[in-house]
Amino acid sequence: MSKYPEARIVDFTHEIEAQNVLQAALILEAGYSFFPKGSVFVNVVDPGVGSERRILAAKTPCGIFLAPDNGLLTQVLQREGRYELRAVTNRRFFLERVSSTFHGRDCFAPAGALLAKDPRLFSAVGPRLKTFRTLRLPKPQVKKGKVRGEILFFDHFGNAFSNIDRTHLKSSEKKTQWQVRINGQEVGAIRNSYYEVKKGEPLALFSSSDILEIAVNQGSAREKLGLRSGGVIEVVSR
Amino acid sequence: MSKYPEARIVDFTHEIEAQNVLQAALILEAGYSFFPKGSVFVNVVDPGVGSERRILAAKTPCGIFLAPDNGLLTQVLQREGRYELRAVTNRRFFLERVSSTFHGRDCFAPAGALLAKDPRLFSAVGPRLKTFRTLRLPKPQVKKGKVRGEILFFDHFGNAFSNIDRTHLKSSEKKTQWQVRINGQEVGAIRNSYYEVKKGEPLALFSSSDILEIAVNQGSAREKLGLRSGGVIEVVSR
Amino acid sequence: MSKYPEARIVDFTHEIEAQNVLQAALILEAGYSFFPKGSVFVNVVDPGVGSERRILAAKTPCGIFLAPDNGLLTQVLQREGRYELRAVTNRRFFLERVSSTFHGRDCFAPAGALLAKDPRLFSAVGPRLKTFRTLRLPKPQVKKGKVRGEILFFDHFGNAFSNIDRTHLKSSEKKTQWQVRINGQEVGAIRNSYYEVKKGEPLALFSSSDILEIAVNQGSAREKLGLRSGGVIEVVSR
Repeated sequence: MSKYPEARIVDFTHEIEAQNVLQAALILEAGYSFFPKGSVFVNVVDPGVGSERRILAAKTPCGIFLAPDNGLLTQVLQREGRYELRAVTNRRFFLERVSSTFHGRDCFAPAGALLAKDPRLFSAVGPRLKTFRTLRLPKPQVKKGKVRGEILFFDHFGNAFSNIDRTHLKSSEKKTQWQVRINGQEVGAIRNSYYEVKKGEPLALFSSSDILEIAVNQGSAREKLGLRSGGVIEVVSR
Repeated sequence: MSKYPEARIVDFTHEIEAQNVLQAALILEAGYSFFPKGSVFVNVVDPGVGSERRILAAKTPCGIFLAPDNGLLTQVLQREGRYELRAVTNRRFFLERVSSTFHGRDCFAPAGALLAKDPRLFSAVGPRLKTFRTLRLPKPQVKKGKVRGEILFFDHFGNAFSNIDRTHLKSSEKKTQWQVRINGQEVGAIRNSYYEVKKGEPLALFSSSDILEIAVNQGSAREKLGLRSGGVIEVVSR
Repeated sequence: MSKYPEARIVDFTHEIEAQNVLQAALILEAGYSFFPKGSVFVNVVDPGVGSERRILAAKTPCGIFLAPDNGLLTQVLQREGRYELRAVTNRRFFLERVSSTFHGRDCFAPAGALLAKDPRLFSAVGPRLKTFRTLRLPKPQVKKGKVRGEILFFDHFGNAFSNIDRTHLKSSEKKTQWQVRINGQEVGAIRNSYYEVKKGEPLALFSSSDILEIAVNQGSAREKLGLRSGGVIEVVSR
């Protein structure tokens, strides 16, 4: 903060599970486009802190993204398409003394502050990169009349988010009525809103980011249905 | 945030229990008057998201309040007395695409941003309303020498807050010494401060919002006394 | 906030365990120097709220610190060395009505706001003090070839922080290889980074504040090793 005391700091979220890079990547993807153009996004979910993993800086039409090179930016950069990618190596962007366990404080925050203060410094952070580490999202199996996916992560309410999105459920037959099964339990058709089932009942619906979500109306699907990351979701037509 | 990047955003609280409209209503009541006049309060505890429930906007001498029409504003508006009430229906105040599960992002935040930027837009949000849904707080039974109430919610420390306030315990006899019992357990007279009992001991006192509170000095009354919302609190004179 | 609506408020942390003054004191010490000079630090971990404990205001070259006189400022003021210390007694710095349970709202926040707005008011807060309550950190036993300390607190990831720092492990023999034992369990040599052990394995290393830390790579040492505050850490040379 000493680097740029006037910065307007917004807490994107502090609710990522410890070390869950995939969850961070997907939540960043879901939210970044709602921030003002030119924002600097400082993303520190960093299980490899202190190792040789690089620090990435990516400039897109939306703003600048900083993150460890661990896949956290996979979805954002796929979605943005156009970007300039650099490794942050110029020690002028870091604190004088860099610890081996807290790069959020020693590298990411100061670099973010300097770039927020003067985005033209971007080209000075370090050398251009052509590639970066990507996360491989498990892909759902899509067959005629049947899609099989899995739970990727949960939100604060206990809603489960899957790797199935609207495009996987586009059918040639307009009248297809999809039925969702989770952990072998039927949760019925895909609804539009939580309130369409009774309080405490499970349901499936498309999330605010258009991915298939398993929820319990006014409850926690995670607890009530005993769900875990990796749990299988089946969607069948009938 | 794109709607009004210069907004000064303060996190009122993120510690409301999921779906607990009553807790939100009481915590909003306890805190709103400490904010600067003209603040815009965006309140999203919204179990009915995606249903036909309305979005309320209320203008009071203190500022503008946005909330689902689920009772969240009951106490604030009772306390304020004078207010102009409208339903937010003008889609110009929302994001272009409104999901059915995340009106906090798609409706409340953008409307709040626009109203913070220009409060004169208030009359454009939608039609005037005469009534709104109110929450019915369970009332304590007040008899001569005996008041019977219940626990409404807990704070972060595990302190329990009841539906009994100072006015319920005004007695014609000046010397009345009230004794408090919770879950059948005596917690003694009403104290002024936590430190008046030993560390780890339970006590009753009036909270910073003047409601009867059950606490444990430097501990959690919720855990230590095994309390739950709805638990009975009895206050008797002797 | 009404006292100084333009204040730039940063959440230092809301993750101190309830009533844990020692943890607050050490986390404040670890972080305060990264804030801009002239910051006002409002520290409210206050188990004695409502008792006769004083409210301290300390002015240092770094900024102004407000805290209950319960030892919270011990480490910061030791480290700063030079400071002007006062008791905050001038009621003009408080809200009109001061509760007995929420001085964060009624005393600390308003005083902090006024001092942030005009730091020259510092001399008006109340009388000068010569002394304040200090916390006694348990000192490690340092013998030739053996240091015995204890766990002081945990962070959000479950990493354990001890009362042993680099200076305790300076040895006359350059080649000393320290071995760490926690709860009777060997965790090996002192590493530089988490990633030096396999995922799920325990390790010891110096934290970003240079104190001996027990961690589990990408896991929680607190849970995995069953650690508690006060647990014994032994470091032996071999």
